Amino acid sequence: MATELVPVVAKYADMLQIGARNMQNFALLHAAGESQLPVLLKRGMSATIEEFLMAAEYILSHGNRRAILCERGIRTFETATRNTTDINAIPVLKSLTHLPVFLDPSHSTGCWQYVSPIARAGIAAGADGLIIEVHIDPAVALSDGAQSLKPEKFAELVHQVRAIAEVVGRQVPVGKKAPVNGSVKG
Amino acid sequence: MATELVPVVAKYADMLQIGARNMQNFALLHAAGESQLPVLLKRGMSATIEEFLMAAEYILSHGNRRAILCERGIRTFETATRNTTDINAIPVLKSLTHLPVFLDPSHSTGCWQYVSPIARAGIAAGADGLIIEVHIDPAVALSDGAQSLKPEKFAELVHQVRAIAEVVGRQVPVGKKAPVNGSVKG
Amino acid sequence: MATELVPVVAKYADMLQIGARNMQNFALLHAAGESQLPVLLKRGMSATIEEFLMAAEYILSHGNRRAILCERGIRTFETATRNTTDINAIPVLKSLTHLPVFLDPSHSTGCWQYVSPIARAGIAAGADGLIIEVHIDPAVALSDGAQSLKPEKFAELVHQVRAIAEVVGRQVPVGKKAPVNGSVKG
Amino acid sequence: MATELVPVVAKYADMLQIGARNMQNFALLHAAGESQLPVLLKRGMSATIEEFLMAAEYILSHGNRRAILCERGIRTFETATRNTTDINAIPVLKSLTHLPVFLDPSHSTGCWQYVSPIARAGIAAGADGLIIEVHIDPAVALSDGAQSLKPEKFAELVHQVRAIAEVVGRQVPVGKKAPVNGSVKG
Repeated sequence: MATELVPVVAKYADMLQIGARNMQNFALLHAAGESQLPVLLKRGMSATIEEFLMAAEYILSHGNRRAILCERGIRTFETATRNTTDINAIPVLKSLTHLPVFLDPSHSTGCWQYVSPIARAGIAAGADGLIIEVHIDPAVALSDGAQSLKPEKFAELVHQVRAIAEVVGRQVPVGKKAPVNGSVKG
Repeated sequence: MATELVPVVAKYADMLQIGARNMQNFALLHAAGESQLPVLLKRGMSATIEEFLMAAEYILSHGNRRAILCERGIRTFETATRNTTDINAIPVLKSLTHLPVFLDPSHSTGCWQYVSPIARAGIAAGADGLIIEVHIDPAVALSDGAQSLKPEKFAELVHQVRAIAEVVGRQVPVGKKAPVNGSVKG
Repeated sequence: MATELVPVVAKYADMLQIGARNMQNFALLHAAGESQLPVLLKRGMSATIEEFLMAAEYILSHGNRRAILCERGIRTFETATRNTTDINAIPVLKSLTHLPVFLDPSHSTGCWQYVSPIARAGIAAGADGLIIEVHIDPAVALSDGAQSLKPEKFAELVHQVRAIAEVVGRQVPVGKKAPVNGSVKG
Repeated sequence: MATELVPVVAKYADMLQIGARNMQNFALLHAAGESQLPVLLKRGMSATIEEFLMAAEYILSHGNRRAILCERGIRTFETATRNTTDINAIPVLKSLTHLPVFLDPSHSTGCWQYVSPIARAGIAAGADGLIIEVHIDPAVALSDGAQSLKPEKFAELVHQVRAIAEVVGRQVPVGKKAPVNGSVKG
């Protein structure tokens, strides 16, 4: 996104997302840091955890303390999945920062069959939130259909996530429209 | 291990383990395939999932059908942990083979603080078993102390694992001496 | 760099460089594609060769045909050098595109001792140009001193590069101020 | 290779080669270290340079000082070539050890078109030797035909290698049957 558009987007959106390919676009991080919106920062596909935290500092150091870190898979030699979910990053980040840590299993696997197992794994490992792509008819989705869950699968996943959250001493709030990602106003 | 020692070891051990560095030591796979013992095959640190399955075929094709696949972390650019747990490999392997799939979070993280979160993640993702290093006094362990759990932490983990297993429709048997890894005779 | 600054920079500079961290900053590629200047596009540290070529298409498709591709090292598990020079990328790119292919051994090694051997390797493999960091007193350089050559080492390298270029049927022009990188007006 | 066969092979061969997949097969390294033959040790596909040197120590520490290190490509995210030639490893190894350092561009590229450029690069970077697969009719080769040079291409390469070796102060001996790899008795 062109940096100069950040204030325009900020007028209409509830949250900003900085994608993996722009994790080190420092002008964009600066502009997001000057907005008043929460910022979901996705880890670059070959960014180390240290670089990920340093990128978040660009947002925080410009006055915006509402950054969320999102693991979305890293690039490795393995080609069986689109990316490799760095599940270790969840507890590592939780031990290094107070910022919320999310997981995006849709992008970190690239395949809907693996989204639910990896979403559950993320919560079991201590993630504070998930971003899940859902589509009522994935076959005709304009993008990312292959990694989108149908609503029934998503509903089943939410039940499992809620149960696993309790095992690790967390709670998923009930009664919100979008209980998991928390980015939609109540 | 020298190949010629396999029959000697097989006389005394309940199970054979082929380590990551020997995943493509075909002479050793052949010898293990000729034994009558279950064989825990650890994934090579840079082996693709396809190569991992092909290595297991060396065991099966020599008449031993009791191979267990064990994800133990792969080598990537990230240095915050000793290896990168390829959690995606759990559901991918489960979809490709009937063989049991284990996770070794001790080696895949290299750090005891991360062992419990990743062990839970493994079960949440569908793993059939775990290998966990436990030591009564890790500080004096002759090897791998940094990644060993103390007994109390291990007991807490077993409770969590049991609860998560139920969420995904599985059960951890009660009353065995070593309920998780299952490699000890009852 | 903020996208809106491209026209300002283009007024004063002879060439634009898009750094590795912005290889997929599409707004910036678009802006560079609309300038009339040659654009040195550096490969992202985890970009595949295919993604590298696709990024160059963003420049070309906006009317600027003077893009130069620059290999500057990729991120791998090896930590003995800052990056891993993907020397294979030189002949692969030469077989896939008509665009000039450069190598930046200063960044691809991160260590002055290795710059000359890898610079020579690049020319031997068919690179069309090199970018070499040189400093009269690297110990006091404001940045990248560790990977900067002193002028005498650089002069020795130019002689070797010229000789190797002839072996592979190429020529390094004589008498220019900056004969190797070609980015300075004659 | 089964360890117990090393003495048998040593009776008939002029040199032992330990392949990439067995670089950390310590029983085999031990056996090779006890033979009186030169040992070509190929780098594991995900072995760090430090691990590579440590593996060579297993040979040397058992009394055989004639180990040769061979870079043959590492595994990375890039799939345009079978492996990624770690050309940086050549000068790094030369600075760390007195052992000869070879390059195998046939395996490190996996494609005959790239073998000559990368072979030249290896010599330009300081390699002490090359291993090149040559076949009189690659299309019918029983293995590795795709990465084999025809004799004419190989002859052309030897001329180029000789010229580049001189640029870096080295010499390729004339009149030997196999002047490059040096593994044939004079």
